Amino acid sequence: MTKPKGTNLTWHSGEVDAAARAKAHGHQGVVLWLTGLSGSGKSTLSHRVERRLIERGCFAYVLDGDNVRHGLNADLGFAPEERKENIRRVGEVARLFADAGAIVLTAFISPYRADRQRVRELLAPRQFVEVHVAADLATCEARDPKGLYAKARKGEIPQFTGISAPYEAPESPELRVDTGAENVDASAQRVVDWLEAEGYLSGG
Amino acid sequence: MTKPKGTNLTWHSGEVDAAARAKAHGHQGVVLWLTGLSGSGKSTLSHRVERRLIERGCFAYVLDGDNVRHGLNADLGFAPEERKENIRRVGEVARLFADAGAIVLTAFISPYRADRQRVRELLAPRQFVEVHVAADLATCEARDPKGLYAKARKGEIPQFTGISAPYEAPESPELRVDTGAENVDASAQRVVDWLEAEGYLSGG
Repeated sequence: MTKPKGTNLTWHSGEVDAAARAKAHGHQGVVLWLTGLSGSGKSTLSHRVERRLIERGCFAYVLDGDNVRHGLNADLGFAPEERKENIRRVGEVARLFADAGAIVLTAFISPYRADRQRVRELLAPRQFVEVHVAADLATCEARDPKGLYAKARKGEIPQFTGISAPYEAPESPELRVDTGAENVDASAQRVVDWLEAEGYLSGG
Repeated sequence: MTKPKGTNLTWHSGEVDAAARAKAHGHQGVVLWLTGLSGSGKSTLSHRVERRLIERGCFAYVLDGDNVRHGLNADLGFAPEERKENIRRVGEVARLFADAGAIVLTAFISPYRADRQRVRELLAPRQFVEVHVAADLATCEARDPKGLYAKARKGEIPQFTGISAPYEAPESPELRVDTGAENVDASAQRVVDWLEAEGYLSGG
């Protein structure tokens, strides 16, 4: 955690602790950090899981790469330092959501291990769940839903993950879903089943 | 809304709209933006309201000035531009929480009308509720829970709101609570009653 610049700050811990929140909401607060190539299906999967969880009465929300860049991170571009700050802020916002007791899904390429590790360290041990959305490059490039790979191959997008910039796959993610091999409903069910098996969907 | 720097962004609207969220959660997503002098009781009031709402089964959360500065805004100090960026980011995070269907309370001095107006404009018409926590300066200075007024009077804190920097009180807040005249439970009840009367605590 960065040491705050401000002095004269006191931490106001509030009147409701994590256990009381979990009991009230019927589930734990947790960050599901999806990482994977562009086109691997992070956004689609996260929104499907979100819907399933909301239908079960959970408080769930997707922090989506593109959406956050329209608001909170609208001041940031794509230079390395700005990408790093993008992920830092998203990690901090995800932490606030988890602290609030929500199941928050983040859908960012987040190609660098160090950046993901930094977010993991912001959170309590079980509060960070790394989900590798593991469609391979050939699959993602064949899908190319936004036409970005085509542009990247033509050199129109510099530093494109998987083409001209590295993707550092997670070495031991809590969960790996192969969105190249199975459809989004099957992957979403796998995520929800995992949450249930691990005790996240219970209030006590 | 700031125009994002990034190109190649598409807005992913998800599968669950605001009405479906409200129905699932039993309440609307809304930002209660508390503004008032240091020591006026914003944090205390917001945490009491949060507890009452959670006890009713709502998804509620406080974004607290000091707390946010330990994480998301740890890179910001107190120069005018940094204060403005502090409030901008908090406004954007509050927007994400409201979009998620939460009742989010923010507890920031937020002394400038223009900054508060900017946050109001980020949100849908009924989604921003300005709450003036209206204990007067004499009361706040007499309480001085953190000893900040004493320091400010000695000139040890430059640009201290109410002493050496202006506080621009809201002209027509949705709600005004006089935390100088009544205790925190009475004020909290007033806020919850107002939310109920205005239809925020219903899902449809």
